[in-house]
Amino acid sequence: MNVILLSGGSGQRLWPLSNDIRSKQFIKIFKKENGEYESMVQRVYRQIKAIDPNANVTIATSKTQVSAINNQLGTDVGISIEPCRRDTFPAIALASAYLVDVQGVDINDPVVVCPVDPYVDEEYFKALNKLFELAAEGKANLNLMGIDPTYPSEKYGYIIPEDKADVSKVVAFKEKPDVETAKDYISKGALWNGGIFAYKLSYLLDKAHELIDFTDYKDLFNKYETLTKISFDYAVVEKEDSINVMRFGGLWKDLGTWNTLTEAMEENVIGEALLNENCDDVHIINDMNLPVIAMGIKNAVIAVSPEGILVSDKEQSSYIKPFVEKIEQPIMFAEKSWGSYRVIDVEKDSMTIKVTLNPGHSMNYHSHERRDEVWTVVRGSGRTVVDGFERSVHVGDIIAMKAGEKHTVVNNSDTELQLIEIQMGTDITVEDKQKFDL
Amino acid sequence: MNVILLSGGSGQRLWPLSNDIRSKQFIKIFKKENGEYESMVQRVYRQIKAIDPNANVTIATSKTQVSAINNQLGTDVGISIEPCRRDTFPAIALASAYLVDVQGVDINDPVVVCPVDPYVDEEYFKALNKLFELAAEGKANLNLMGIDPTYPSEKYGYIIPEDKADVSKVVAFKEKPDVETAKDYISKGALWNGGIFAYKLSYLLDKAHELIDFTDYKDLFNKYETLTKISFDYAVVEKEDSINVMRFGGLWKDLGTWNTLTEAMEENVIGEALLNENCDDVHIINDMNLPVIAMGIKNAVIAVSPEGILVSDKEQSSYIKPFVEKIEQPIMFAEKSWGSYRVIDVEKDSMTIKVTLNPGHSMNYHSHERRDEVWTVVRGSGRTVVDGFERSVHVGDIIAMKAGEKHTVVNNSDTELQLIEIQMGTDITVEDKQKFDL
Repeated sequence: MNVILLSGGSGQRLWPLSNDIRSKQFIKIFKKENGEYESMVQRVYRQIKAIDPNANVTIATSKTQVSAINNQLGTDVGISIEPCRRDTFPAIALASAYLVDVQGVDINDPVVVCPVDPYVDEEYFKALNKLFELAAEGKANLNLMGIDPTYPSEKYGYIIPEDKADVSKVVAFKEKPDVETAKDYISKGALWNGGIFAYKLSYLLDKAHELIDFTDYKDLFNKYETLTKISFDYAVVEKEDSINVMRFGGLWKDLGTWNTLTEAMEENVIGEALLNENCDDVHIINDMNLPVIAMGIKNAVIAVSPEGILVSDKEQSSYIKPFVEKIEQPIMFAEKSWGSYRVIDVEKDSMTIKVTLNPGHSMNYHSHERRDEVWTVVRGSGRTVVDGFERSVHVGDIIAMKAGEKHTVVNNSDTELQLIEIQMGTDITVEDKQKFDL
Repeated sequence: MNVILLSGGSGQRLWPLSNDIRSKQFIKIFKKENGEYESMVQRVYRQIKAIDPNANVTIATSKTQVSAINNQLGTDVGISIEPCRRDTFPAIALASAYLVDVQGVDINDPVVVCPVDPYVDEEYFKALNKLFELAAEGKANLNLMGIDPTYPSEKYGYIIPEDKADVSKVVAFKEKPDVETAKDYISKGALWNGGIFAYKLSYLLDKAHELIDFTDYKDLFNKYETLTKISFDYAVVEKEDSINVMRFGGLWKDLGTWNTLTEAMEENVIGEALLNENCDDVHIINDMNLPVIAMGIKNAVIAVSPEGILVSDKEQSSYIKPFVEKIEQPIMFAEKSWGSYRVIDVEKDSMTIKVTLNPGHSMNYHSHERRDEVWTVVRGSGRTVVDGFERSVHVGDIIAMKAGEKHTVVNNSDTELQLIEIQMGTDITVEDKQKFDL
């Protein structure tokens, strides 16, 4: 099975656990059988591989997510990197070209495309496999999965099928309706449109060539910034007559808001927290080394991270976006290809950061114009290079770098290297960074 | 006017803004006219001085509060330091002896004793002055202030007066009653016992000599640890026949819980926080450099400090104590005589701390057995001494101290000196500290 997982969007609706560079799909919030936690993207990837160990999975995403994907899934997974955001049609076209031109998938092979973020179980992936087979049979150009509605939701678009058969022709698509209209649709057998579909690669690439002037993947990638933003629905679905829909009645939860995300949590608390017996329907996700006590709180989510603290009624939590947009703050936590960093103190002319370097990894060789830095190694060992001077470093070693001095740290050990970085200067920003070849 | 302010108790009921070494009376939570914030102790001290600029104020407290008192009130205020906690009678006896033997107050002078933590205004201090004068007149041995009850509270003890005159003899004291009994008391003119009273020093010291074998203040101080715990009510009030009570009908709020404390706050938010329009009766006190968003929350207090995060229904907030006792955590923030420190990161074998040294102050000269330390100066300038070697330090300077090396930093400038201290070693505790003379 070829699968393209669409991993997009900013993480604002799940603030403070997601941010501009760490999206919700990477928050480790789902408890596995062994007691460890996994993220949405880890869960989906594991579930696909359980159904089809040979599945060829490609994640269509932006450059900012590549480090997190490699950290969480390793380097076996395909990644179709969108140089910038251009809506779903260019993203799907690019990923399809990536499968054919980079991975060498046969252009007559089918592929299933689905979002990375619904909460689903094994049945869903079996259904995905059926959808893949339907696309291979080629009775329709596009094959959609329709979700059996569990209530007359106003949040989803509806697919109106010709009849109530397991697979039937699509008669029409309907935008998000009001509750009464939704009830009417449902009585006629309508299904939620979860953005899950399958097609033969040749079909989609033909459509892409009709709309975009490009030769192959590389060419499309290079001119990606010049493309017009256009959704897959608008560019393809609305103009296509040959569409079938397959009913799916299993578990499917959209995890777009704290309200729906907490429904999918196995337990009410992740991290350090105490609740008194007068709390009811409270979920706490605490990603800080800081105890939380909740007393007499009901129907609420409490989320704590280095980015901030959310205390929200569950229903209200879906309206968070404009509030998050008001907050101006440097990114306080980030996963990088080489490890992670966490801002632990911010002052006017200094900033203190905890840097964790994974075994076998190193930072870029870089310098800053407006700040000096001091590293103190607090765990592990490795090598540092400062303006060409290399030395080995261990716990307790101190490395001082003046503004302008090029520097890097290499973790050549097989355990984590951790250092406290103190930045001192005026106008400290992540943009003040010049990279060099070592 | 001589005033003894009783400043006792652990800060658990106002966690996380108070802790074992920072009590609630030092939290800067009250907005002054100039927009700055002051603590309970600062507010009470300022209010006393406004009524009587020559008031002789002594704070009876434990050793752990001395630094905070000097930081917040300066060094003009008297402090009667209890070497350990021995309940209110020994504390009041020690403070009374302090007034006579250390401050040289005439033994025939009166003194008013009151808790440091009620929320009151000018009228209260005018009433205190009247109480002081009643004690000077000497018509009764003990002169109490009784608070006019505003509702039949189950939280307070009641004073039953002979009649409803402004000043009358006390007939009886009643323990915390149920609501119906409280209503009955109030109908008979009963008053709340707020622990506010005045006496002549000679009276109290005679009582003290009857119960405790001591010569003077210094002797009492030295044998303080050997004293039996006994309350002032039990040792004195219950055995005394000559007690008058003076009615007080002005503003008086007990600030013992988040519920009552937030009632006294001028504004709903202190620190960085955003509330949506569906929040109602929410107070947020955010003492961290971390944004808080509250949505759709009602009748709740959200308190955030380096010690932890409380999210509590206001009514429920008074039941916090057993939960705080469950939390095992090093003190994350403390005011010291020389400034303050804040733990900004805790790892297994390292800890990172931000130290702020006030102008003209220095740390103790000290060493540690089980940890190395690194200081990086991030603001201001001063001098450091490491094993006798003295140097001047400025922003960006790094000072490394191995376990066993004696060290101190002196802020001989007129601005704050700030440094990041990285501690590395096993079993890092505040107890691992040996002090030396410099």
